[in-house]
Amino acid sequence: MGAIEPLDPFSYPWPSGVAPVGGGVCAAEGIAAAGVVAGIKKSGRLDVALIVADGAPEQDGLATAAGVFTSNALAASCVHVTRSHVSRGHLKAIVVSAGNANACTGAQGFDDTVSMATNVASHLGCDSWDVGVASTGVIGVPLPIDAVTAGIEAAADRLSADGGGEAAEAITTTDTFPKEVAVEVELAHATIRIGGMAKGSGMIRPDMATMLAFVTTDAGVTGAQARQLLGRATDVSFNRITVDGETSTNDMVLLMATGRSAAVEPGSADESLLAAALEAVCGFLAQQIVRDGEGATKCVRIDVAGGADEAQATAVAFTVAGSPLVKAALFGEDPNWGRVLAAIGNSGQAIEPDRVAVRFGSVLVAASGARADFDESDVAAHLRRTDIDIAIDLGLGEGHATVWTTDLSYDYVRINSEYRT
Amino acid sequence: MGAIEPLDPFSYPWPSGVAPVGGGVCAAEGIAAAGVVAGIKKSGRLDVALIVADGAPEQDGLATAAGVFTSNALAASCVHVTRSHVSRGHLKAIVVSAGNANACTGAQGFDDTVSMATNVASHLGCDSWDVGVASTGVIGVPLPIDAVTAGIEAAADRLSADGGGEAAEAITTTDTFPKEVAVEVELAHATIRIGGMAKGSGMIRPDMATMLAFVTTDAGVTGAQARQLLGRATDVSFNRITVDGETSTNDMVLLMATGRSAAVEPGSADESLLAAALEAVCGFLAQQIVRDGEGATKCVRIDVAGGADEAQATAVAFTVAGSPLVKAALFGEDPNWGRVLAAIGNSGQAIEPDRVAVRFGSVLVAASGARADFDESDVAAHLRRTDIDIAIDLGLGEGHATVWTTDLSYDYVRINSEYRT
Repeated sequence: MGAIEPLDPFSYPWPSGVAPVGGGVCAAEGIAAAGVVAGIKKSGRLDVALIVADGAPEQDGLATAAGVFTSNALAASCVHVTRSHVSRGHLKAIVVSAGNANACTGAQGFDDTVSMATNVASHLGCDSWDVGVASTGVIGVPLPIDAVTAGIEAAADRLSADGGGEAAEAITTTDTFPKEVAVEVELAHATIRIGGMAKGSGMIRPDMATMLAFVTTDAGVTGAQARQLLGRATDVSFNRITVDGETSTNDMVLLMATGRSAAVEPGSADESLLAAALEAVCGFLAQQIVRDGEGATKCVRIDVAGGADEAQATAVAFTVAGSPLVKAALFGEDPNWGRVLAAIGNSGQAIEPDRVAVRFGSVLVAASGARADFDESDVAAHLRRTDIDIAIDLGLGEGHATVWTTDLSYDYVRINSEYRT
Repeated sequence: MGAIEPLDPFSYPWPSGVAPVGGGVCAAEGIAAAGVVAGIKKSGRLDVALIVADGAPEQDGLATAAGVFTSNALAASCVHVTRSHVSRGHLKAIVVSAGNANACTGAQGFDDTVSMATNVASHLGCDSWDVGVASTGVIGVPLPIDAVTAGIEAAADRLSADGGGEAAEAITTTDTFPKEVAVEVELAHATIRIGGMAKGSGMIRPDMATMLAFVTTDAGVTGAQARQLLGRATDVSFNRITVDGETSTNDMVLLMATGRSAAVEPGSADESLLAAALEAVCGFLAQQIVRDGEGATKCVRIDVAGGADEAQATAVAFTVAGSPLVKAALFGEDPNWGRVLAAIGNSGQAIEPDRVAVRFGSVLVAASGARADFDESDVAAHLRRTDIDIAIDLGLGEGHATVWTTDLSYDYVRINSEYRT
C-alpha cells in the first residue's frame, strides 16, 4: 500500500441512483475475466489478464465497444492495433500483458501484438479483429511472446464471472494496490451495472508510464453512444489527472457494453443517468490512480471556477497541477499561495489579476491577486491533511474544471532515478 | 558555490572576433554601476544595484534601450512600469532590488515601483521615465520602501566604472555565484564591448522565480535595432533554458547601448558580428543560470536537429528538457533512452517514429524509434559527467534548436518544500 489510503467505494459520494457493488469488471452481466502468471514479471506475480464479453444475441454475442488512446506520437503497437480493431464498434475480448510494454520494439513488436490478438481469438472462436490488446511495463525490450501465448491459454481456461479481482491485479505494475470498482444504476425501467479496473502509478518504474483502464457495462448502447459516453467520461476523469505531466506511449481506455440488461435510447433521460454513472466510475478509478501516484504523500484536488469557458478553467487547473514549485510546497505543507498565483499567471490564459481568488480548503488566501487577510494556522491545519483542496476563482465567467494531482516528494525522485536494471 | 562549476569566460568557445575581458556590465564605455546593502535581505548582503549609462552626445546622454519581459499574466508592477518606460527606446539607468519581488502587492506595490524610479531620477537629474526598475525575491510582501530609498541614495553615491562586480552580486538571491561576463568584439573599423550580468537559480527560494539579465554595450544602435538584436539573442539564450518550466512574475532582460564606441549600421556585416557576440554573451549568462539551477547536479544540453522547422525542434527540445522522468533518470545516471523517446512523442509534434535517432554523448542509443546496438558502459561513462549532451535527430528537415536544462534531484525537492518563514 502507498502512502495514501485508497478510496473506499462504499463511502464514496456516488451520484443519486448509483450504488456500489462488488465484482469489478465482472459485475456487468455477460462479462468473465481471469488473471494468470505468464512469467513476464520477474516477481512471479499475475501478469496476463483476459476480459471476455458474452454479448446479447442482438449484438451477435459481441460487446459494443469504444476506446480512447494516448496522444503520444510514438505510441506502442498495441495502441495502433487496438484503435484499428475498436474502430469497428465492437469487441469480444481484451487481453493485457503487464511487465513489458512492447513499445519501441519495431516490427517484431507489431507482430507480437497481432499474435496476442490471434491467440485469444483462436481460444474464443472469434475474429482476431474482435480482440483489443493492451501492454504496460518496461519499454524497448522484446515481449517474451512464448510466455504470453501460454499465459493467454491459461487465462482462457480460467475465465469466470468471479475473475474481476485477479484481472485487476494482473494489469498492475508498480501500483501498490489494484484498482477496481463496480456500481449498480437505477434507470427508469431497469437496473444496469458498470464495472471498471485501472492501473497507473504515474509513469512506471523502471521505465515509463502507462495508464490503462477497462470499463464494462451490461447496458445496451450503439457504437456511436459508446464513443460519445466514453469520450466525455474520459475527458472529465482520466484526462483530468496528472502525476508528473507525462503521457505514455501505451495509455488506453476501453469500454465494452454487453447489452445483457437494458437498451438505453440515445438522447433519453436514462442515457443521462448512464453518462453520469460512467463519469463517476471513471472519476473514482482516476482518483485511485492519483492516490497511488509515484512517491505521492498528498492527493490534491484543484478546482477552478469562474473561467471564461471550460477550456480556460482546465488549462489553469493543469498549469497549477503541473507546477513543480506548487507540488514541492504541498509536500512541505507550505501554504505558498504566491506559487499558486504565479502558476495561474503562467497558464497562457487571459487572466485578470484583480479578479483572481484562491482558497486552501475553506480559507481565502488570495483575493484580487494579492494576499488575503487570513490566519496561517488555519491553512497549516488544512495542509497537514492527506487530501488537499485548492479552489481558484478566475472571476471571468462560468467555465469550471477539476483536476487531481499529487505532491512532488523525495520518493518521486528516488523511484525515477534508480537504474533500470 | 553550487554542485556544478560555473563556466570560465576565459576558456569559453566564443565566436571568432570575440574575446573575453573583465568588468562585467561596466566593460562597455559609458557605464557605471554600484551595489549596496539596503537591508532588504535578512542576511545583510548587497541588495540594491544601480546601473547608469552616460550615453553619447548624439543620444542626449541616454542609452538606446530594449527589453524582453515575462509572459506571466500576473506580472509584477516593475514589469509593467519598465515595459512602459523602455517602450520609448531609451533609458538612463536601471535599478534593481533583490530579496523582495514586490509582486502580488496590489496598488501599494505599483506606487513603490514608481517611487524607486522617481528616486533614481532625482539623484541622476533625469526623467523618471528614463529609469528601468526590476525586483526579485519573496512575493506578496510589501517592499520596505524606506530602506530601498536609502539604498538608492547610497548606490548613486558609489557609482563607478569598477562597480560591475558588486552590482552583479547585489541582484542575486538564492544564486550560489554571481553571474557576469564581458567581451570585446572586433568590427570592421572599430572595437566595441558588450557586458552583462544575470541572476537565476531556477525559481527562487523561499517563494518564487526570477530570471533577470542586464546587458550593456558601447556600440551605437537605433531603438529598432536594439529591440531586434535583444529579441533574437533572448530567443536563443534565456528563452532556451529551463530548470523547472516555471516562468516568474518578474522575469526581465534589458539592453542599454551607450553609443560611445562605434555606430553599427542596420543590415551591415558589423551588425551581424554584433548580433553573434550579443547572442554569445546572453548564451553564456543563460548557461550560468542553468549551472546554478536549484538542486542541479547535471548541466544537460539537448540538441534537436532534423526538425520540420525551428519551432518544431524547439518544442521537442523543451518537452524532453521538461520531462521529470528524463531529468530524474539523468540524476540517477540512468541511460534511459526510452524516456527520451516517450518525451519526444509527447511533444505534440508530428513525429515520424521510424526517423528518430537519439545520442547520449557520441553514442547512438536509439534509431528508427527503437533501441540501437550500443554498449551500456560507453553511455554510463558519459552520464557520469557533470555536462551531459543529448542529441536528437528527427529526420524531417533542417529545423534546429538547443535547450539547456538540469537534472531533477532530491535537493530540488528539499529547497522548494521548505517552509517560507
